[in-house]
Amino acid sequence: MNPTNPLKNIRIVLCGTAHPGNIGAAARAMRTMGITELVLVNPQRFPDPQVLWLAAGATDVLEAARVCTNLGEALSGVALAVACSARRRDVAVPMLDARAATAQAVVVAQKRPVALVFGNETSGLSNDEVGACGLLASIPVAGDFSSLNLAAAVQVFCYELHMACGAVLPPEKAQALATHEEVEAFYAHLERTMVETGFLNPAHPRKLMYRLRRMFARTRLQVEEVNILRGILSSLVTPKRRRKD
Amino acid sequence: MNPTNPLKNIRIVLCGTAHPGNIGAAARAMRTMGITELVLVNPQRFPDPQVLWLAAGATDVLEAARVCTNLGEALSGVALAVACSARRRDVAVPMLDARAATAQAVVVAQKRPVALVFGNETSGLSNDEVGACGLLASIPVAGDFSSLNLAAAVQVFCYELHMACGAVLPPEKAQALATHEEVEAFYAHLERTMVETGFLNPAHPRKLMYRLRRMFARTRLQVEEVNILRGILSSLVTPKRRRKD
Repeated sequence: MNPTNPLKNIRIVLCGTAHPGNIGAAARAMRTMGITELVLVNPQRFPDPQVLWLAAGATDVLEAARVCTNLGEALSGVALAVACSARRRDVAVPMLDARAATAQAVVVAQKRPVALVFGNETSGLSNDEVGACGLLASIPVAGDFSSLNLAAAVQVFCYELHMACGAVLPPEKAQALATHEEVEAFYAHLERTMVETGFLNPAHPRKLMYRLRRMFARTRLQVEEVNILRGILSSLVTPKRRRKD
Repeated sequence: MNPTNPLKNIRIVLCGTAHPGNIGAAARAMRTMGITELVLVNPQRFPDPQVLWLAAGATDVLEAARVCTNLGEALSGVALAVACSARRRDVAVPMLDARAATAQAVVVAQKRPVALVFGNETSGLSNDEVGACGLLASIPVAGDFSSLNLAAAVQVFCYELHMACGAVLPPEKAQALATHEEVEAFYAHLERTMVETGFLNPAHPRKLMYRLRRMFARTRLQVEEVNILRGILSSLVTPKRRRKD
């Protein structure tokens, strides 16, 4: 148990996986999202060289993977087991979408181990397997086509777990935004230039400056960009090199 | 253009894809999320029998796929192109996470065509390709491992597009929730039974009923479940068949 990172309290349980490539791809999907505990219940082929074909660098996840002979063993110690399924069941377990279910899973995983359980490629989870879980979760799909690949489903659930833990992109290289005064000085420069060239008639300004302000506001100008734009304006009025004829 | 379903205004553009299996898997990922327009820029092997290996039933997407020789052709008519990339660029295009970017894409796609652009498996998108797009989007990943499989990235983006369009799970088979009166009648029955058996001392009830109420409140009891629970209570007090000795 890791009290600071809920993702370290989450195990992915794959039941009866048929294709070793899917185990490798699932391990890679987990690894990209910072989830590393993989449990395999009766995999049809594991270990198997094909597992590595789609695993990219997730060999550490595969090396640490635990193989069990039944789901109960795989869920040992777990405080919440989420059955991940493509379809509704008659089993009386509440069903949530992947986003809502992973939000609940992460809350529990702050303190206690949580498992996400996936069935095999063709028949998914049995009713008994779903019944052993406390929650049923599903990825909303387009009505006429419901078959996510197993590793793709693991990717979406692990992505949602990662997002539920507040994942953010690495920070942007600091680009200094221009200050209010710098932007206003640019607008004044632009307006003066347009008056000089005759494009803007000060007697009938209409809404030209408002439209230009709206456009530049959307870009949120940076210091360097203001300098470039003002440089262009200056060079248009006073060309550094005279045009031929 | 389809004014009612933004997903029909969204095209997925794959640039220089090396492995035909990834094209098939991407088509399947799109199809599960209701996105059907696939454009391939200089695929290394297409058509190719291996494309179908991972496509499941998404053959319609593959048959309708358009092959282009450059990105400009693929983006023809598009009002917003989103470069989907694993990393920040020096190119001055604003970068958002997949969720924020797809939210913007869906707003535009209500009226105008939108493209999501993915690079090839090893080097991703070039700076020129990113520069041709209006937005840069990335999936937040675990710090020490940033390599999503191409089809997995397409799956996450298409999932987010689908969610941004308000995707919901198919409705639950209507399970009638018990009314306030029905639940209160059950609590009264439960309390009466516990007093009769001596488990609850009415002189010192402590917080027993509050704890039981809290537990049952979490389950949101259904009519049928209240009937089962009350049936159990009755049968405990008045067994239908006498126990042996």
